[in-house]
Amino acid sequence: MKRFTFFFLVAVATMGGIAALVAPARGPAEGESAPAFVTEIPQGYRDWRWISSAHEAGKLNSLGAVLGNDVAINAYREKKIPFPDGTILAALHYRNVPSAENNKVFGQAQSFVPGAPTNVQFMVKDSKKYAATGGWGFGHFADGKPGNAAFMKTCFPCHEKAKATDLVFTRYAP
Amino acid sequence: MKRFTFFFLVAVATMGGIAALVAPARGPAEGESAPAFVTEIPQGYRDWRWISSAHEAGKLNSLGAVLGNDVAINAYREKKIPFPDGTILAALHYRNVPSAENNKVFGQAQSFVPGAPTNVQFMVKDSKKYAATGGWGFGHFADGKPGNAAFMKTCFPCHEKAKATDLVFTRYAP
Repeated sequence: MKRFTFFFLVAVATMGGIAALVAPARGPAEGESAPAFVTEIPQGYRDWRWISSAHEAGKLNSLGAVLGNDVAINAYREKKIPFPDGTILAALHYRNVPSAENNKVFGQAQSFVPGAPTNVQFMVKDSKKYAATGGWGFGHFADGKPGNAAFMKTCFPCHEKAKATDLVFTRYAP
Repeated sequence: MKRFTFFFLVAVATMGGIAALVAPARGPAEGESAPAFVTEIPQGYRDWRWISSAHEAGKLNSLGAVLGNDVAINAYREKKIPFPDGTILAALHYRNVPSAENNKVFGQAQSFVPGAPTNVQFMVKDSKKYAATGGWGFGHFADGKPGNAAFMKTCFPCHEKAKATDLVFTRYAP
């Protein structure tokens, strides 16, 4: 009875858009097929350790870094594949912009630095909660707001191509 | 007398190339004019927090990150200029290489990642020890070996151009 009441309250609250105030984000109940996404920004991620940097040219024109919590860092250093439950990866993305002040010192246009932040993306390993998407929950936040469902559905099909590295593209920079 | 003996021993040891076994690296004694460089890699720098990423195109063709110890991170976040004594910045540099596996997934050549490590550079703030170079000791290590004196002398004249930010080029990525 208690259990029913709890889920009912959550359902009502979700309809009202205030689920976050009542209970932490939850994956789909057993038997449900909708994939679960990461709906809250993991706390303290900006203090996590650095895994690597990345630059995407072309339309993305992005420069950023991937940070990891302790579980992630240890898994990388111990070359644990698949990553253990509890792993969280944070990809911090910014516009890739030329640095006028650096170029002035160098005497030529060669220096690129992170400009305005564009988004932060997360991969959270929980092999039960996110079983439908390879054990990973995907998150995308721009200005603190999560990506919509249609956008979030594009994460897994792409990451699934990196099967050999447990759906993770980023390598550890020594 | 004791003091003289100590410096004498250090001098002899240095000539024998084994100074590191006898005493930690020291700056020039008072009245000495040779600039002091960072001759030992600061411990644990790979676990420091991420300040920003950087890409240098052209001849450097570098992709990397700047990490900072706690003093550095706090100074950045509190916008402390000049940086306080104890600040250490670590710039980790790698070849900027295309990622064949990422490009395959993206369906186009756009992804660049850190390749082979090239060097790690440090800036250590100690306004007394490094007074001759703006309060900063500069360090450069390739394969764990410090840069030679001729090379190290090029650090300060370049960084000196960033006077407004206490000789530091790197900005904090939010």
